[in-house]
Amino acid sequence: MTRAAPIALTLGDPAGIGPEIAWRAWRILHHDPGLCFFMLADPQHLARSIEAQAADIPLATINRADEAAAVFARALPVMSLQNPAQAAPGKPDPANAAAVIESIERAVSLARAGEVSCVATNPIAKHVLYEAGFRHPGHTEFLAALCADAGADGATKPPRSVMMLWSEGLAVVPVTVHIPLAEVPTQLTRDLIVETGRIVDRDLRRRFRIDAPRLAIAGLNPHAGENGTMGREEVDVIAPAIAQLQGEGIDARGPYPGDTLFHARARAGFDAALCMYHDQALIPIKTIAFDEAVNVTLGLPFLRVSPDHGTAFDIAGKGVARPDSLIASLRLGARLATGKA
Amino acid sequence: MTRAAPIALTLGDPAGIGPEIAWRAWRILHHDPGLCFFMLADPQHLARSIEAQAADIPLATINRADEAAAVFARALPVMSLQNPAQAAPGKPDPANAAAVIESIERAVSLARAGEVSCVATNPIAKHVLYEAGFRHPGHTEFLAALCADAGADGATKPPRSVMMLWSEGLAVVPVTVHIPLAEVPTQLTRDLIVETGRIVDRDLRRRFRIDAPRLAIAGLNPHAGENGTMGREEVDVIAPAIAQLQGEGIDARGPYPGDTLFHARARAGFDAALCMYHDQALIPIKTIAFDEAVNVTLGLPFLRVSPDHGTAFDIAGKGVARPDSLIASLRLGARLATGKA
Repeated sequence: MTRAAPIALTLGDPAGIGPEIAWRAWRILHHDPGLCFFMLADPQHLARSIEAQAADIPLATINRADEAAAVFARALPVMSLQNPAQAAPGKPDPANAAAVIESIERAVSLARAGEVSCVATNPIAKHVLYEAGFRHPGHTEFLAALCADAGADGATKPPRSVMMLWSEGLAVVPVTVHIPLAEVPTQLTRDLIVETGRIVDRDLRRRFRIDAPRLAIAGLNPHAGENGTMGREEVDVIAPAIAQLQGEGIDARGPYPGDTLFHARARAGFDAALCMYHDQALIPIKTIAFDEAVNVTLGLPFLRVSPDHGTAFDIAGKGVARPDSLIASLRLGARLATGKA
Repeated sequence: MTRAAPIALTLGDPAGIGPEIAWRAWRILHHDPGLCFFMLADPQHLARSIEAQAADIPLATINRADEAAAVFARALPVMSLQNPAQAAPGKPDPANAAAVIESIERAVSLARAGEVSCVATNPIAKHVLYEAGFRHPGHTEFLAALCADAGADGATKPPRSVMMLWSEGLAVVPVTVHIPLAEVPTQLTRDLIVETGRIVDRDLRRRFRIDAPRLAIAGLNPHAGENGTMGREEVDVIAPAIAQLQGEGIDARGPYPGDTLFHARARAGFDAALCMYHDQALIPIKTIAFDEAVNVTLGLPFLRVSPDHGTAFDIAGKGVARPDSLIASLRLGARLATGKA
């Protein structure tokens, strides 16, 4: 059986849990004929991570993405970076920034050239990169900036990306994300909800191959505001956005009270829920799928998945980091690439 | 085996699902020797509800609470109200307000006299009562007002009540409740969190018989504000409140990010989570225990439980209303009354 096009897995911060969850994931996944990934990393650093935990994981250096499939069943394929990664677990060092950034840039290049089916990113630590001169607000913004020439008008505006948290049975999209709760009511606009809804609808069709995506739109206030008596945003902002999406042929419904939107019977009724703020989206999915949630970036010219956790410097190198979310990410990436999702 | 002291179940709005979930709950619970409840209702109205759905539920009229235990195994005990309830299912009528209010008042009297172990309340519709001159902001505020003479100073200030949503495995307390989300950051004060924490700690000891209650305190902002970089409320309001509670000997910890507080491993670490706003509390419990969550009112001079749903006029009388949450409420009330929780 031929393996699908490989997934490129980035280094992430080499002092975090990225290296060890990568080889743990390979140990579990290398028998799966429907899946293949390789890592963009420093093979010597990765070998030290394996040796330090007395694991037995063979590595195979590859030069081109299409070499990964032939070796994946017997070794973890590694495409070498030009920059070294020399971090000890738990000791982040700005000296590794060049390798971290090179890994992301090369993964994007390979994805845009069609040589990989999907980019999976290990967690980075922004504050470490900032010390080395990194100027992007975050990981996803950097990925979008690397696609700035992909806009319809050929200009240098990066595409608008949308974060979706996905698990078997529940997918959620926070419309506003990493802002103080007090700023949510002012930053939540009709345009923002409409733009987000369009991207979610388009990528559920294009990447998830759902023919008629059903979007549930949450309210902002308790009980979705009870017809404007407990907050006006549902009436003034959210319902008009839903009407506009519906006018564009998108199956968007709501606004629904947040608290009754996520139990088993309710979540069977939609393919993704658009939530108005970070915790409204992340509380339900992390409550029911804490170890298995996958962070999917929609809106980019390629599919990007990442585990739903950070660098976890505090447990790096200790042999306790769980590869569950990375494994779920790689499995989802492979499913979407092969059209089985 | 002797049954415990009975639970008084109020009428609720007679046009809602209260009557039918009451007799459905009795049908399931009447074999349980550890539980006994009676309803404060109009027996003729209740009989019509049973007859309309072709059910076979014997009723037994009682005059005193202590008569309920002897009949409970063979009939649903009913203590008659002086005011009639004549509502048809789904057709609320302000003419029934006197019966609705009498039922609540008599339940409170019986609880305060020690004749019942617990008050279970069926849902009411405030707007119907308002048309009949009811002047309290809600059901719980009315119960508190009926206890206004119970304050330590003998004054007429009603006790501060706290809403807790309880299920097997997760109990949550919204510190702010039915207010627009935009008002949460300003209404959330150190004093409010401290007062709420004290009541929860006291009633978990007194009513739930937990010797050393562990309270987890959620943050307000994404990732609990990341040390003040994404919202200041954790630093300025919540952490000082936690320090004050700890100074009073209360095991309060946090502020914890809301999204990682409610998965199975996390919730094993606390007895109740204090949440900063309605949906932060209600999303996790309704996601995992939609039909079984019980609304428990803490801070009153007696235990009050109620099903975690409304009057549901739209499905009243149609034979589809689920008694699950009322059953969970009555079971919890019985457990707490008999010291088995």
